[in-house]
Amino acid sequence: MVKKVGVAILGLGVVGGGTYQTLVEHREFYLKTQQVDISVEMVLDRSSERLDQLGVPSEIRAKSIQEVIAHPNVDIVIETIGGIGVAKEFVTMALRDGKTVVTSNKELICKYSHELEKIAKHNRCGLFYEASCVGGVPIIRTLLDGVQANCIRSMMGIVNGTTNYILTKMTYEGADYADVLKEAQKLGYAEADPTADVEGFDSMYKLSILSSMAFHTKIPYTKISREGITGIGAKDIAYGKELGYTLKLLAIGKNTEKGIEVRVHPTFISNAHPLASVNDSFNAVYMQGDAVGDVMLYGRGAGALPTASAVVSDVIYAATHAEIKYSTFKNTANADGSVKFISDFESAYYLRLLVDDKPGVLAKISGVFAKCGMSIVEIAQKKRDMDLEQGQVPLVIITHQTTENTVKKAVEKIKALQIGTIETVIHVE
Amino acid sequence: MVKKVGVAILGLGVVGGGTYQTLVEHREFYLKTQQVDISVEMVLDRSSERLDQLGVPSEIRAKSIQEVIAHPNVDIVIETIGGIGVAKEFVTMALRDGKTVVTSNKELICKYSHELEKIAKHNRCGLFYEASCVGGVPIIRTLLDGVQANCIRSMMGIVNGTTNYILTKMTYEGADYADVLKEAQKLGYAEADPTADVEGFDSMYKLSILSSMAFHTKIPYTKISREGITGIGAKDIAYGKELGYTLKLLAIGKNTEKGIEVRVHPTFISNAHPLASVNDSFNAVYMQGDAVGDVMLYGRGAGALPTASAVVSDVIYAATHAEIKYSTFKNTANADGSVKFISDFESAYYLRLLVDDKPGVLAKISGVFAKCGMSIVEIAQKKRDMDLEQGQVPLVIITHQTTENTVKKAVEKIKALQIGTIETVIHVE
Repeated sequence: MVKKVGVAILGLGVVGGGTYQTLVEHREFYLKTQQVDISVEMVLDRSSERLDQLGVPSEIRAKSIQEVIAHPNVDIVIETIGGIGVAKEFVTMALRDGKTVVTSNKELICKYSHELEKIAKHNRCGLFYEASCVGGVPIIRTLLDGVQANCIRSMMGIVNGTTNYILTKMTYEGADYADVLKEAQKLGYAEADPTADVEGFDSMYKLSILSSMAFHTKIPYTKISREGITGIGAKDIAYGKELGYTLKLLAIGKNTEKGIEVRVHPTFISNAHPLASVNDSFNAVYMQGDAVGDVMLYGRGAGALPTASAVVSDVIYAATHAEIKYSTFKNTANADGSVKFISDFESAYYLRLLVDDKPGVLAKISGVFAKCGMSIVEIAQKKRDMDLEQGQVPLVIITHQTTENTVKKAVEKIKALQIGTIETVIHVE
Repeated sequence: MVKKVGVAILGLGVVGGGTYQTLVEHREFYLKTQQVDISVEMVLDRSSERLDQLGVPSEIRAKSIQEVIAHPNVDIVIETIGGIGVAKEFVTMALRDGKTVVTSNKELICKYSHELEKIAKHNRCGLFYEASCVGGVPIIRTLLDGVQANCIRSMMGIVNGTTNYILTKMTYEGADYADVLKEAQKLGYAEADPTADVEGFDSMYKLSILSSMAFHTKIPYTKISREGITGIGAKDIAYGKELGYTLKLLAIGKNTEKGIEVRVHPTFISNAHPLASVNDSFNAVYMQGDAVGDVMLYGRGAGALPTASAVVSDVIYAATHAEIKYSTFKNTANADGSVKFISDFESAYYLRLLVDDKPGVLAKISGVFAKCGMSIVEIAQKKRDMDLEQGQVPLVIITHQTTENTVKKAVEKIKALQIGTIETVIHVE
């Protein structure tokens, strides 16, 4: 028994274009393997040039959102416009009309999922957004239907391809941040304005969505502490490597007895950790559940076809699981505001100092750490590089678990000693 | 709106016990996060000692399968007995009575899924078996609901923890197979009779189930070419390492234009491949979809709680997706027997020879390869080990892609030359 489903696509840029292509090329395949006949009934995009390139027949090109919504055969509306302006408006209109929406829009979902889910629920339609996080990797499906038997204790994700590409190049080629960024921009891996990626905003939105699902409560992005990779030097990556660590921009969520902590920052992880070998533009999410233990999902976090895979997966799911209007209703049902967020979280640290090359300096610094109650895993005085002033040497320290406030205190005290400067402080997980 | 669901567990061994524990301990959690109240209404196990250990109340201990099936509150029957004797009988009875079945039984599903699914369909109930493959890793859910928008081109999996543990030890400690096996048996990682694991039967069953789903057609296990790890020596692992390869027991399925190939065998993969760093008893499945590209799932492939995670995930899924009686009906609908299986598949090869330490030997061997149309990626004459006879040296060869039959021919020809022996032939992917 074949089920017929009509879809409309709003915005035919990279992801929307890939979605159109995937749906058209796989129509027979889905008919055969899923017993569902998905036809693209309408598309909406301002650029007719783009639609020409994609070979979109003129009869399915809509002139307005009204035309799309009024179309009797459109059951599912795919939103791949991005941003929160017109995208929000169109999604709201579609849901109000009782059409199920599938979106790849992380900012929209991060900021307005509650509002949109209410509308969807009220109008008895679905809101699906697998494609909003980590491209083709089915992380949302896994959280909802794959590891839902678990209380998820923690998640750590490499959820941004641009920064992972940059860090991988810095790690394996010893290149500097600015040079790699320029190269990434040339190759189209980084935007002309790279802020959203390199400053961790993109990772932050995704962490908000994923940790909300993992921890069964709304995690507003405003609760996420965020630090980008712009301050990372090739030198720190190299020193970390010598000590057995790889640097990654991680989105971290932990659900502990004391509360929830959520943060995005450059992080050293052991080379033996599965996330350490996730390279280039690949993404991965590593989770710990109380029954399943460690689980990791790995794949392409961006790109036209990988993201289209997630969009179309949602379309098929919505089409074949007719009675499931899920989105995350059930997961946010207990978002009662009682959740405690931890800001002064615990972590190990990597510190790089530039200190006077004099007797007694190491003792003084160790003294500060001891006074602050911070214990040291490893301390290494490095050879003076050519670019350093005479009389100064680099000092690299890895600490045990401690709180952020303790580290801040120690940093202040070392500053006061006037025997050197603290160049870098990086989290170690 | 809370949904009430009653379950019965048949067989409270490792997995069944873990499932009981998980369901009892998480009852409140599932009520809160999934709005489903799952109660264990009956358990059936011959050993009352085991039930005592698990603290199973006497009033829910069934005396017979009839008692379980007759119980008015049992909606879902969990089968964690294993094997195909009584397990098949009980599952059939439950399905005939219209009860949805969740099972962790790979052999049962591999051999009888078609028969059981027909019964399930006829009686309008579900048959779920996430736990039958790769423990807690939600690979079946992912194939059905996460990457279903893709035509899956290939899958390569480390799907057996025992052999991966043994190979990891051999790789990192240079230990010999027999010694590691003994150690693994002592630690409980390997069975007293390890045949099912080390000869690749376990991997074969899982590959049959997973490739059937991935390729949307029934792949009988009898079509799978199978080779275990008992012939693997520490020496080959070490030579491979020097050349940049890691040895894994892989379950491989490929869906090519020429047909489907399915095989389980020890395989060298590049150290840079994500599967190469899947160590110890961890499992992983690496897939390539035509839209999503590369995707990998990683986690615990066995153990009480990881496997219970998969069982309970299916229970929750069955309970909350009431209208989905899925199992794999849709995936095997087109199993019309027209599928072509490739037996003479292509792969690259690692060969280790022991050859006479004489001038001209290398030229003769290269000549054979050239005559057979096999091109060589790398050839290395190794230092003579202490345990070799005087006048003999090891020769290691990595070939480009070639067919199994071509390799067989070359091996015959080299034998005929009487200048040495071929000690090992290992696939390279």
